[in-house]
Amino acid sequence: MASLPEIQAMKRALELALLGRRAVSPNPMVGAVVLDSSGNSVGEGFHEKCGAPHAEINALSEAGAAASSGTIVVSLEPCCHYGRTGPCTDAIIKAGIRKVVIAMRDPHPNVSGKGIEQLESAHIEIETCVLLDEAELLNRVYLHYLRTSRSWVTLKMALSMDGRTAAKDGSSRWLSCEESRKQVHRMRASAQAVMTGAGTVRDDNPELTARFTDQPLEEQPVRIVVSATGDLGNSRKIFGKTGRVIIAVPENVSCKLQKFQREFGADIWGFPADSTGYGFNLTLLLERTASEGFGEILCECGRGLATMLMRKKLVNTLSVFTTPLILGGEGLPAFEKLGIDSMVDSIRLENVRSSLSGTDTHLEGEVVYGTD
Amino acid sequence: MASLPEIQAMKRALELALLGRRAVSPNPMVGAVVLDSSGNSVGEGFHEKCGAPHAEINALSEAGAAASSGTIVVSLEPCCHYGRTGPCTDAIIKAGIRKVVIAMRDPHPNVSGKGIEQLESAHIEIETCVLLDEAELLNRVYLHYLRTSRSWVTLKMALSMDGRTAAKDGSSRWLSCEESRKQVHRMRASAQAVMTGAGTVRDDNPELTARFTDQPLEEQPVRIVVSATGDLGNSRKIFGKTGRVIIAVPENVSCKLQKFQREFGADIWGFPADSTGYGFNLTLLLERTASEGFGEILCECGRGLATMLMRKKLVNTLSVFTTPLILGGEGLPAFEKLGIDSMVDSIRLENVRSSLSGTDTHLEGEVVYGTD
Repeated sequence: MASLPEIQAMKRALELALLGRRAVSPNPMVGAVVLDSSGNSVGEGFHEKCGAPHAEINALSEAGAAASSGTIVVSLEPCCHYGRTGPCTDAIIKAGIRKVVIAMRDPHPNVSGKGIEQLESAHIEIETCVLLDEAELLNRVYLHYLRTSRSWVTLKMALSMDGRTAAKDGSSRWLSCEESRKQVHRMRASAQAVMTGAGTVRDDNPELTARFTDQPLEEQPVRIVVSATGDLGNSRKIFGKTGRVIIAVPENVSCKLQKFQREFGADIWGFPADSTGYGFNLTLLLERTASEGFGEILCECGRGLATMLMRKKLVNTLSVFTTPLILGGEGLPAFEKLGIDSMVDSIRLENVRSSLSGTDTHLEGEVVYGTD
Repeated sequence: MASLPEIQAMKRALELALLGRRAVSPNPMVGAVVLDSSGNSVGEGFHEKCGAPHAEINALSEAGAAASSGTIVVSLEPCCHYGRTGPCTDAIIKAGIRKVVIAMRDPHPNVSGKGIEQLESAHIEIETCVLLDEAELLNRVYLHYLRTSRSWVTLKMALSMDGRTAAKDGSSRWLSCEESRKQVHRMRASAQAVMTGAGTVRDDNPELTARFTDQPLEEQPVRIVVSATGDLGNSRKIFGKTGRVIIAVPENVSCKLQKFQREFGADIWGFPADSTGYGFNLTLLLERTASEGFGEILCECGRGLATMLMRKKLVNTLSVFTTPLILGGEGLPAFEKLGIDSMVDSIRLENVRSSLSGTDTHLEGEVVYGTD
């Protein structure tokens, strides 16, 4: 059993880990706290960005000689391989640490228990699974990435009480109250990338930047536009004043988009054309975004892309703002058919967060597909 | 300006008024507090049931001689006419009251300012509009009844996040979490009558009683079943063990239902058949319920009746529990077409109450129709 000071140190380590959120993705967020032999905290650290020293190294360096015969509390199993930095296990052994408290094993194939083995062979006491659930939740994007090589998708929707995204004629202003709109800007501010469909770009001409926050211009999320046809209409706000724009299309239409590359410096990503859904395989897109370091993508899109992402089970978090009005059966539905025949097949949320947002309500949770 | 003790007394009067909720409907709920000449509360009363003494009489009787030169604080303009009880204005004058503080004028044609006039001619000081908004909200059912001669309808729905009442195959268990289901039983317990459609009776065989509460059997809400065809299938739970059941049908099918009258003592209400909606004019039904003393009706029904009530602008409060799951575009929608072409025509809620109910969210408010 971990002692109370060790558990408190783990809580702190998880807080520290979160500070690296945007910069380390899709690598794991890690925090570490060093306790001296009397149980006092003498060093803290977190993984600040890819390629920078690991949390353990930062915490040990702050602790200095006080680490000797002490304990290191770390939210993820220490690494034992030479990556961009040296193995943390070596540094822990060298610092004279007597006990290592770990929240979760690192499922990365280069680690996966080997870090713990190395520490044990150096006769260091090991305690694992301390605040395991919290650590897994914190690193859900990393765990998802290891399992699927894809980015984590958060689908945000604004709906009427009867589940409509717009009235019959397509009008949808304002389907969310002011507080919810501000909340969406905060979500964008903490996202690395915001994804939408070309239909939304054509119809709404959105900027998809984080406004009404103190977000610096240079930290605006990357915008990703998904198009089956390459037709973005005459909307240009998405290219905005700053930041990268990626346009994902089937290869056979990518030539149409070279003007956007020339005029706005947009990145054009072509994928093999197919007829199974959105012109190309969205899974390939999410693999590419992950490989380029976008661990998590906020998706604000129309019914077509939302339906396709749901059908392909690519939505990981669903975040719905519901506003107190009714648009009737003629209003535009949130989704097209999803292949749900009965309640037992319904798409459910787990780890549900429900909250009030001005006069709207906000339901958010991780998606569990009916046939999972 | 009303003094602080008078405002506090008015808050108390509004609380007292609410105690008569079920018993006085659709007459107004009224509460009264008598303050002596030093501003101390010396008597309280409320209108306990139709035909019983009014709030002012009860409060004055508790105050006795202490009312002399005092103030009476009352949530509604005192009556000045001989109804089932004598006029309150006479009693107030006789008690030697010096000041009357009133929340709202009584719009009833027999009163409507005449009560205030009588008191003024007796040289009593009058203060009106104290906590007016609260008083109007409290007596919304009465005000609605005076204006329309109809019962106030609260439509309760349980929906998925994408606004579906059931999956494609009609299954809907459990679309609400346990806490929401308990909340619905509390709503039934405080309702005089619960209304549903024959389709719901046939498909779900509901009891529509208030369970999981300490509601005595004899205070169960009256159940009202609305049917266009008189076909209730084989479902019989609605007739339950106790309480009145009303079946509302077009006159031309009422003979089909005589067996329910014989077997279960059900009341059969026939209305002239028409082809404009639900087999007969629902407005006539709500006029009859109001005239029989059901000021407020809780409606728990399927899409057909809900749509018809909305189209006819007969829903006054909408109360929606949203549960964190998705049923897709093939799920059964909350409403059929409501004639809403654009956002400006949307049916909005005002005075919105949003709250969390277990893992569900609950949005409730008074309905404002787009073309109002």
